[in-house]
Amino acid sequence: MKYDVIIIGGGAAGLGAALYSARYNLKTLIIAKEFGGTGNIAHRVDNWIGEPGITGMDLMNKFIKHIDEYKVPKIEAEVTNISKLSDGSFSVKAGKTYHGKTVIYALGMKHRELGILGEKEFAGKGVHYCYTCDGPLYKNKKVAMIGGGDSAGWGSVFLSEHAKEVYTLVRKPFMRAEPITVSQMENSPKIKIKYKTEAAEFLGEKVLQRIKLKSGRMMDVDAVFIEVGHIPLSDMVKPLRIKRNDHGYIIVDNHQRTNLKGFCAAGDITTRHSLKQFITSAAEGSVAAETVYNYLKSNKW
Amino acid sequence: MKYDVIIIGGGAAGLGAALYSARYNLKTLIIAKEFGGTGNIAHRVDNWIGEPGITGMDLMNKFIKHIDEYKVPKIEAEVTNISKLSDGSFSVKAGKTYHGKTVIYALGMKHRELGILGEKEFAGKGVHYCYTCDGPLYKNKKVAMIGGGDSAGWGSVFLSEHAKEVYTLVRKPFMRAEPITVSQMENSPKIKIKYKTEAAEFLGEKVLQRIKLKSGRMMDVDAVFIEVGHIPLSDMVKPLRIKRNDHGYIIVDNHQRTNLKGFCAAGDITTRHSLKQFITSAAEGSVAAETVYNYLKSNKW
Repeated sequence: MKYDVIIIGGGAAGLGAALYSARYNLKTLIIAKEFGGTGNIAHRVDNWIGEPGITGMDLMNKFIKHIDEYKVPKIEAEVTNISKLSDGSFSVKAGKTYHGKTVIYALGMKHRELGILGEKEFAGKGVHYCYTCDGPLYKNKKVAMIGGGDSAGWGSVFLSEHAKEVYTLVRKPFMRAEPITVSQMENSPKIKIKYKTEAAEFLGEKVLQRIKLKSGRMMDVDAVFIEVGHIPLSDMVKPLRIKRNDHGYIIVDNHQRTNLKGFCAAGDITTRHSLKQFITSAAEGSVAAETVYNYLKSNKW
Repeated sequence: MKYDVIIIGGGAAGLGAALYSARYNLKTLIIAKEFGGTGNIAHRVDNWIGEPGITGMDLMNKFIKHIDEYKVPKIEAEVTNISKLSDGSFSVKAGKTYHGKTVIYALGMKHRELGILGEKEFAGKGVHYCYTCDGPLYKNKKVAMIGGGDSAGWGSVFLSEHAKEVYTLVRKPFMRAEPITVSQMENSPKIKIKYKTEAAEFLGEKVLQRIKLKSGRMMDVDAVFIEVGHIPLSDMVKPLRIKRNDHGYIIVDNHQRTNLKGFCAAGDITTRHSLKQFITSAAEGSVAAETVYNYLKSNKW
């Protein structure tokens, strides 16, 4: 049994790819460790047009139900290996081994965590990893941003447009963010940059209420946003010699093609969009399906 | 009163841009002749993930309601002129004149029509302009495709995967589509190419039932798909010297930037995606909003 396409990953990119693959009448298989992926943990999504304020879980369930209407087989398992066979097709190991003419790789990325006490406990309950998604929920509140790079800088400015006060906690005595961003932060009456400051523990009753700093001092906050980097889940493509950028994101062209014939990537894992959102991921998945369809017709890559 | 961004066009791209502009806290205005745009006429949309089988009208209304939650002012009027002012901002005429620091242009394209009797009457009722959208509705039916280029060729192959019979009506004695596509058509037992054949009139009771050909002959069909080209609505950007390709589509980079500082384009009107769908348009709109936001912060283009 050889599938036309095996989609790896069950977030917005993978599900978007599955919808279009099915519509192109391709024999499609989708494999994911958890359908819905990291989308499931967003407690309030307000950036999927048409669904103001839906929960991540509900949105992902709508996506999955749509795929189910097309009867796309879903395998809930972790993919552990992908090999290219001599005939140009692929074998994908996820417990059992599956065989596909093409692959759409959409495993996304995970947010780098601080690894401190309370971080997991309050995830989605005051501890957030996406300021664009969750920042607007804290209108006129007091929030903290943790990180010293561009994302932490942009995030602080973004948060200052919603929150009453923003405390940016930077481990080093300086920020690595672009100077213009740092100036904007310094010029904002709402933002206070705290250098050489590290969080040691997140505390609260049911929801986050305060941060314990390494100095021992306590800081009351309504939310904390963590921007200390992301880890793209792309290690598995290394043996296939698929080109990645310095940060491990898979390099794709405008058709979601990687340098390996028959192998597309879509969503947060790719270099295509700096705006990494449900909408851009679902679009990338759809385009990847179009590309696979055209490739199977023409054998051109 | 100067807006941060004026969005021109009220389809998926314009509304997607409005949502993200509002989320970026930009002072946003959206102007459209008809909110929902051509999306309104799709009688059954099955390619917007999470909404199997929704009508175009209902989907667009969901988008519009979301924008309304952010209280983005909407002007229902036709834009007749856009000028760049000496300070780099834009004046947009739509009845009254509006003033914006940036523009997101998302007017889309219209399908080229045949201009024959019955075409308007049966639009959406057997006469279709998007085979990807509406082709799967005609499973095991008899359909016709009109056109001789790549789209008509791809469309015929696509339709043959769903329909029982596909008649491709080509005005000339040959097709302009790629040879590989023509071979696929010739090898398909379901596709019959009819050269030097033109439709004169569409006939039926309530829905399309037959095509009257110029020869006078009648052809019974359940649906006809017209692929004789699109007209991008981009004439208005000509005086601004915005670069377009040979077909009139606006050339944008991966951030939806045109060659004119402060002027983004998004959706069907651009060169970004060959897959022109709601999902890609909404994604382009979101990215354009991100770009405008970054530009207003940094003044870099």
